[in-house]
Amino acid sequence: MSEYTDHDPDGSTVGVVETKYYTFAEPPDELLLDCGVSLGPVTLAYETYGCLNADKSNAVLVLHALTGDAHAAGYHSDRDPKPGWWESMIGPGKGLDTDRYFVISSNVLAGCMGSTGPGFINPETGRPYGLSFPFITISDMVKAQKALVTHLGIKRLLCLMGGSMGGMQVLQWCVQYPDMVVSAIPMATTMRHSALAIAFNEVARQAIISDPNWNKGDYYSGEKPNVGLSVARMIGHITYLSDSAMRKKFGRRLQNEQDKNDFSYDFNAEFQVESYLHHQGAKFVERFDANTFLYITRATDYFDLTQFKGLGMALKVFSLATAKFMVISFTSDWLYPTYQSKEMVKAMKKSGLDVCFCEIEAECGHDAFLLPNERLTRLVKGFIESAFIDIGQRVS
Amino acid sequence: MSEYTDHDPDGSTVGVVETKYYTFAEPPDELLLDCGVSLGPVTLAYETYGCLNADKSNAVLVLHALTGDAHAAGYHSDRDPKPGWWESMIGPGKGLDTDRYFVISSNVLAGCMGSTGPGFINPETGRPYGLSFPFITISDMVKAQKALVTHLGIKRLLCLMGGSMGGMQVLQWCVQYPDMVVSAIPMATTMRHSALAIAFNEVARQAIISDPNWNKGDYYSGEKPNVGLSVARMIGHITYLSDSAMRKKFGRRLQNEQDKNDFSYDFNAEFQVESYLHHQGAKFVERFDANTFLYITRATDYFDLTQFKGLGMALKVFSLATAKFMVISFTSDWLYPTYQSKEMVKAMKKSGLDVCFCEIEAECGHDAFLLPNERLTRLVKGFIESAFIDIGQRVS
Repeated sequence: MSEYTDHDPDGSTVGVVETKYYTFAEPPDELLLDCGVSLGPVTLAYETYGCLNADKSNAVLVLHALTGDAHAAGYHSDRDPKPGWWESMIGPGKGLDTDRYFVISSNVLAGCMGSTGPGFINPETGRPYGLSFPFITISDMVKAQKALVTHLGIKRLLCLMGGSMGGMQVLQWCVQYPDMVVSAIPMATTMRHSALAIAFNEVARQAIISDPNWNKGDYYSGEKPNVGLSVARMIGHITYLSDSAMRKKFGRRLQNEQDKNDFSYDFNAEFQVESYLHHQGAKFVERFDANTFLYITRATDYFDLTQFKGLGMALKVFSLATAKFMVISFTSDWLYPTYQSKEMVKAMKKSGLDVCFCEIEAECGHDAFLLPNERLTRLVKGFIESAFIDIGQRVS
Repeated sequence: MSEYTDHDPDGSTVGVVETKYYTFAEPPDELLLDCGVSLGPVTLAYETYGCLNADKSNAVLVLHALTGDAHAAGYHSDRDPKPGWWESMIGPGKGLDTDRYFVISSNVLAGCMGSTGPGFINPETGRPYGLSFPFITISDMVKAQKALVTHLGIKRLLCLMGGSMGGMQVLQWCVQYPDMVVSAIPMATTMRHSALAIAFNEVARQAIISDPNWNKGDYYSGEKPNVGLSVARMIGHITYLSDSAMRKKFGRRLQNEQDKNDFSYDFNAEFQVESYLHHQGAKFVERFDANTFLYITRATDYFDLTQFKGLGMALKVFSLATAKFMVISFTSDWLYPTYQSKEMVKAMKKSGLDVCFCEIEAECGHDAFLLPNERLTRLVKGFIESAFIDIGQRVS
């Protein structure tokens, strides 16, 4: 049996899926962005898994993190060696059960995986936007996703879920379009980006901007700023792990394990942790656009739900929200630590919302939300099920 | 009164001091380095404060961190606006009391502040060493310092103290030249560099190496790799602070505090934390050499006292040490966290050493050891005093 076939021997994957594209083209369908610019036409890449039920009450929207894409589950062909990024969570019988729910996974505005972003052709010039692409915010991403959801004929989402920047979108949805959200699961996230997180983003951006190939964002016809983007990715990867995960995974082991402390005395990758970072950097530049990295990290830096202008004179950040929440954090996540989840739970409770909170024991740092975790799966499954029952549906 | 004069109104500074240089020139005085290369002549920059007593029993050796230098206390002239890096600790009546003790502060081998390093002229070629400089280890740094201390006529150091990489040198001294050390204070340090610390170093090195001006280390006659070095410094500065220190110091405040969340929507420094990092990066490149940064970070990565070859068949890392220790860690230090200090205290106790340990409450992260702290001052003062009494001296 080839390793590339029969992805679904026990029916636990959605199998072969296809990325779709929704373009909303003409005014008045242009997006009025927070920065004041109107953007259009806008294309969003998305995938769907499972079937929408007759009354369109079983739709769950999945939102991805910084470097994710629309391809959250399944495979793109029978020979595709790698499933979508949340394969452990989404599929028949899984935490997000595609036998029961209609799952939409949407790419973000400014992304580089089929959605309108800085690498897209600007229809006005016939050339890639580059730095002429307008600045976007998490709220802008959500505006575009709302257009997609509406296009799919869905008036109310049974659940919204996502981790990290995906969790920011979840939170933003809940205060921006409260009538469209029944329940929400923000994971490993924050309601306002911290100074530490901004600092890491800024250093990563400087690594890109310092690369001469970046050329003020105008590199699509020449050499790409892969060296800078690779360094940026390495910085990111340190923040996605944890001290203890790194100790377990790499310790002080050398590339050549036989050479115990017989160092080669050069600046090549000598320790396994260095080699891991180099590998992550090299893989990343093959699939990601440096300008998208700049724009999207900036959007997360701007994220502060407490300052959301749509709140008007309302003083409480979640005063407009109506969703039922399950907030999840992970013990070893030091990028969006548990105290930041607790802050948001407190704010939700102040607005009288129905919220449960769970801090999951995990050693692997911020990335924990992406990894198979039985407890996480059980929590997600139970929470969506109860939301489905709440709106009067029977779960068989 | 000019702000540049009268540095010493209350007698609490060592005043105007001068950096001195010790060169040990000829074989057999060459240094046989761990990498197998013999290096000579070797120059070490150093400063001294206070007076050596008649029986030469009051000498304290101070060792600096990654980007420090020999100038630990006092001023270089009457108009010097800035004192040495440990002015809060060293001076008349201070934690390290120059009225009582003779303080030696030594630069490290491979440094760029007057000591032999990659920016030094290679006598064989008449050009800067650059990457032809041999790789050095913490043990090599200590070998050079031993030559300096011996040159000063001192057979035994009353105390050794230093934080971070300075602490590594302290530990190395204690197992490498145990007969020369009465007592030692390693602070905010580790006995083996962790995967996380190696990872941060490697990303910083990659930022430098990626800078086209780096030119494989051969840049002394042209443009310097300041852009890469600046990014490297920014990464370092994140690790020297802490999440809570950054929240207090910067939060989400913008450069223009009036513009509360009226973003300028560009990639310039918009948040105060970004501006702080840029400033630190810009200041650093004026005083530091990129190649030295590469060599010295590599030396810290190599540091694993448990694998010190001088231990021979001895199984316990501190089995050769005889010094009395005071180990100090800081609560918010996540680069060399308290658990790593506890590891070393445990190892010292296993070897039957006299060791006391103190974790100091501090919010400011790894850099805490450099900042004025009354408790730290009191601990240091008491510990050195008791070591001085132990060797039969009266403290007036």
